[in-house]
Amino acid sequence: MTLDRDAVQQLDRNDGLAGFRERFVLREGLIYLDGNSLGPMQHGVDERVRQCLKEEWGRDLIASWNKADWYTLPQRLGRKIAPMIGAGEDDVVVTDSTSVNLFKVLAAALSLRPDRKVIVSERSNFPTDLYMVEGLAQFAGRDHRLRLVDTPGEIEAAIDDDVAVVLLTEVNYRTGWMHDMKAITRRTHESGGLAIWDLAHSAGALPVDLAGADADFAVGCGYKYLNGGPGAPAFLYVAPRFQNSVEQPLSGWFGHADPFAMAPTFEAAPSIHRFLTGTPPVISMVALEASLDIWSDVSLAKVREKSVALGDLFIVLVEERCAGFDLRLVSPRQSERRGSQVCFAHDEAFAIMQALIARNVVGDFRAPDILRFGFAPLYVRYVDVFDAVEHLVDILQTGEWKQPQFKARGAVT
Amino acid sequence: MTLDRDAVQQLDRNDGLAGFRERFVLREGLIYLDGNSLGPMQHGVDERVRQCLKEEWGRDLIASWNKADWYTLPQRLGRKIAPMIGAGEDDVVVTDSTSVNLFKVLAAALSLRPDRKVIVSERSNFPTDLYMVEGLAQFAGRDHRLRLVDTPGEIEAAIDDDVAVVLLTEVNYRTGWMHDMKAITRRTHESGGLAIWDLAHSAGALPVDLAGADADFAVGCGYKYLNGGPGAPAFLYVAPRFQNSVEQPLSGWFGHADPFAMAPTFEAAPSIHRFLTGTPPVISMVALEASLDIWSDVSLAKVREKSVALGDLFIVLVEERCAGFDLRLVSPRQSERRGSQVCFAHDEAFAIMQALIARNVVGDFRAPDILRFGFAPLYVRYVDVFDAVEHLVDILQTGEWKQPQFKARGAVT
Repeated sequence: MTLDRDAVQQLDRNDGLAGFRERFVLREGLIYLDGNSLGPMQHGVDERVRQCLKEEWGRDLIASWNKADWYTLPQRLGRKIAPMIGAGEDDVVVTDSTSVNLFKVLAAALSLRPDRKVIVSERSNFPTDLYMVEGLAQFAGRDHRLRLVDTPGEIEAAIDDDVAVVLLTEVNYRTGWMHDMKAITRRTHESGGLAIWDLAHSAGALPVDLAGADADFAVGCGYKYLNGGPGAPAFLYVAPRFQNSVEQPLSGWFGHADPFAMAPTFEAAPSIHRFLTGTPPVISMVALEASLDIWSDVSLAKVREKSVALGDLFIVLVEERCAGFDLRLVSPRQSERRGSQVCFAHDEAFAIMQALIARNVVGDFRAPDILRFGFAPLYVRYVDVFDAVEHLVDILQTGEWKQPQFKARGAVT
Repeated sequence: MTLDRDAVQQLDRNDGLAGFRERFVLREGLIYLDGNSLGPMQHGVDERVRQCLKEEWGRDLIASWNKADWYTLPQRLGRKIAPMIGAGEDDVVVTDSTSVNLFKVLAAALSLRPDRKVIVSERSNFPTDLYMVEGLAQFAGRDHRLRLVDTPGEIEAAIDDDVAVVLLTEVNYRTGWMHDMKAITRRTHESGGLAIWDLAHSAGALPVDLAGADADFAVGCGYKYLNGGPGAPAFLYVAPRFQNSVEQPLSGWFGHADPFAMAPTFEAAPSIHRFLTGTPPVISMVALEASLDIWSDVSLAKVREKSVALGDLFIVLVEERCAGFDLRLVSPRQSERRGSQVCFAHDEAFAIMQALIARNVVGDFRAPDILRFGFAPLYVRYVDVFDAVEHLVDILQTGEWKQPQFKARGAVT
């Protein structure tokens, strides 16, 4: 197979999603393969935030809680995300961070399975997911323990009658492995447990069907494929069957049935609102809201189709053009089990990624040895994939990554 | 005593803080006595947020975590607040909401007193403080219980050897009563308990001396007297003696000793950073940071002095001019025990406040019967107090508040 740049540009000309790229702010020459860490800004989002500051906060002040409807931001944003993840419109809220939301749904799930002590997850799950289990288990003092598996193939066998919760990130942040949400949820239910799905690397990258998979709880991130801005508030899903009964310990005033009654005792809202806690960070919420509008015009099936094509193209080109440079494919080759990213391992991954970034090809390094490339189909072109590989080839062939400035470590997300 | 408008304007001419008012965006004719609910925006804050969007997010994308120092926002903002509350510069972080932070410090404090079961607070404390205790106690399943007092005078007697934690808002949100932080903390320590102070209505309104009072933990709000924007992230203080040892259950990756090692097990940061949880909402954090700059130019002693003078003036004028209209002073008359607000009760408080707001005099209604007026000395003038009372007199004398449009209830914060 030989693919030259012209052939790849033809793929862009035939791309039904190509028109969305111009809605994003992307500086000339930038090849941005890191939208799975921080999605780019869309034109108009800054203007919407400016309006929030100037008119809502600056001019109308406290009246904006009603006039600009700040109160309903958690629900309003939830309604925009719901159809993207196969949830009913009242089954999602946007609030807090993914970590804090994990704590809430974990605590809720464990309270539903009081006699079970085991939480199944992957050792390579995103660390905060595991840390929140640790913190919760230690605090609850109920002898809960994590059962961590090393490969996706071990998950189903790890689910037995002791398991209270299976907690997985649908698409693994390091490998890009995409779990079979429906099969694992079914297996979990068969053994009497509950399934919590972290959609950080799914929402906006591929169609998710929480209701179809019968998932119990889910959380997800606003600033990756949803492009909601740095540290954008996170979302949280609760299956309708639990919304009016399950309790969660972060029972703040925004989760009260009647917050402004200012009653001294807590009465949980008769809906998913009981998973809200404190006052939401309005400015960040407004940026996320404006960023979500694009999705009403997008077919997630087409996003997935292009995502697969971009990833396949990247794998083919890297393996063909970088042969002999010891890059080892870490992501699944078969696209059915791969999210919207492709990772290669290399002992010098850190320096190689720094050299790529210096050439305006922005991906991610993930300790200890992973080069991670995310493909966000709304703004990544086929020709970007081609050019990124050309840069990678050049960096490897010339040994450019050996320059000292590429070896110094700094924090990267 | 007779004070006419000219005499009051003379007070403004002699006011050493008068110059700060022009830094705030306040529309012509507005008398804003609700900065204890949502502080106004300062000029320049919108420009700083625009820069964050355009340059940091829009142009530099993921690189801004280092380049724009997003990582250190929680600590950087904490350092700006620390001197205002009598804390060491590394003893405060800005993160999450006040409610979520309360959960963390409550859990931490209870873990330090494992054999004690009682949390003392006020029945009229801001509800979310009590709700978080309820949620935590229920979840921990350790038989913790609230011991609520009805008047400030009962607090010290309620503190006995069963008490794990005394949790109070230094300035009560309804009455404006200011507790004696030092005396209550001393009493708490004498009986072996720990003191948590909620500074929501203190920070930026009066000098706070957490270290001098030997407080154990504190939380507070970014959007009231700190003017950080709607739903601005909250702050959290931990006494240095606990920072390297105490644990809190919301142990997310931002609280890890080395977040980017991506280790599967949690190791708490050896500092107050262990009280961080997830990724911070950067845009809201940046708005708060820009809003905090003003405090380096401000003497909180002078803020307090003017706050007392504004409150005294308001009480004198209301009692003199509105006599016979059944307004009952709810706040302490003696300024030593009063925060930066004055509250009057009236059976028709809701409608009266609506009528005031219609005249551009913005205060707060607090269920069931409280008219709440906050005096933020950086932008509230003596003449604003005078004019507000004139409007109130007129509304009461004419019965303007009886108009039907002022009776309809909506949510107010």
